[in-house]
Amino acid sequence: MNEVHRSWRAAGRWQNVDVLEYKEDGSAPFREVTRQVLFEDPALACQLRYFEVAPNGHTTLERHAHVHAVMILRGRGECLVGDEVFAIGEHDLVQVPPLRWHQFRAAADAPLGFLCLVNAERDRPQLPNADDLAALRADPKRAAFIRV
Amino acid sequence: MNEVHRSWRAAGRWQNVDVLEYKEDGSAPFREVTRQVLFEDPALACQLRYFEVAPNGHTTLERHAHVHAVMILRGRGECLVGDEVFAIGEHDLVQVPPLRWHQFRAAADAPLGFLCLVNAERDRPQLPNADDLAALRADPKRAAFIRV
Repeated sequence: MNEVHRSWRAAGRWQNVDVLEYKEDGSAPFREVTRQVLFEDPALACQLRYFEVAPNGHTTLERHAHVHAVMILRGRGECLVGDEVFAIGEHDLVQVPPLRWHQFRAAADAPLGFLCLVNAERDRPQLPNADDLAALRADPKRAAFIRV
Repeated sequence: MNEVHRSWRAAGRWQNVDVLEYKEDGSAPFREVTRQVLFEDPALACQLRYFEVAPNGHTTLERHAHVHAVMILRGRGECLVGDEVFAIGEHDLVQVPPLRWHQFRAAADAPLGFLCLVNAERDRPQLPNADDLAALRADPKRAAFIRV
């Protein structure tokens, strides 16, 4: 039965899929995020991961040359992509173009679970420096949103 | 707002995503399937498509060298992968290895909507010949399942 991995009540958990740390603790700022690798196959040029952010949690504010193709699977929240902050909910699609600053945050009263598709071969994320943060904070909505 | 494409009530439709024919009519056997391309980007080595099979409909029975990485997004049904027929529901994951015969079918009383991840560069599907069909039909469960 390796071909099919059952979802556990569509609750962001799957049979035979390990729940992993989002990143190594202390390697970058984040809060309450788990990571699961849903598809990773030598024959597939991409990986499909599932991240779940607990209520009030957030991913790392970062950028990289590789693109993200995201679908929200459960819950709701907001995301920064480049210059804008967007409200996001179930099944919404989010594209993160190359080198665009981005961050995902769950609502205060709901988790945010999302699929994230990336190339199997990709560069490492960059964190913002003081100048980057000043530029991001030039807009009040962005300033209120970002967590570092 | 090109970064975010809203889902229409998580009902298998998205803002700015066209609903396409599954395949050209008459090119292969199928019934009541639509296709939407959710992510297709020159910077991404894969494509993410969404297929929706109406109640009692089915995809084409076929195989190919490229792999499929599938997540059921809405509804329920069954699928053949290789030798086995599996019941499938929301958020279940299905891997279709290279050259394995496969077919998806919606339940009689529910649609079957699923994400399907493939390499951007991939081979064309093959249809079964009479010998292939005889081998598939050697098992009563498979014989009852397949539609050609």
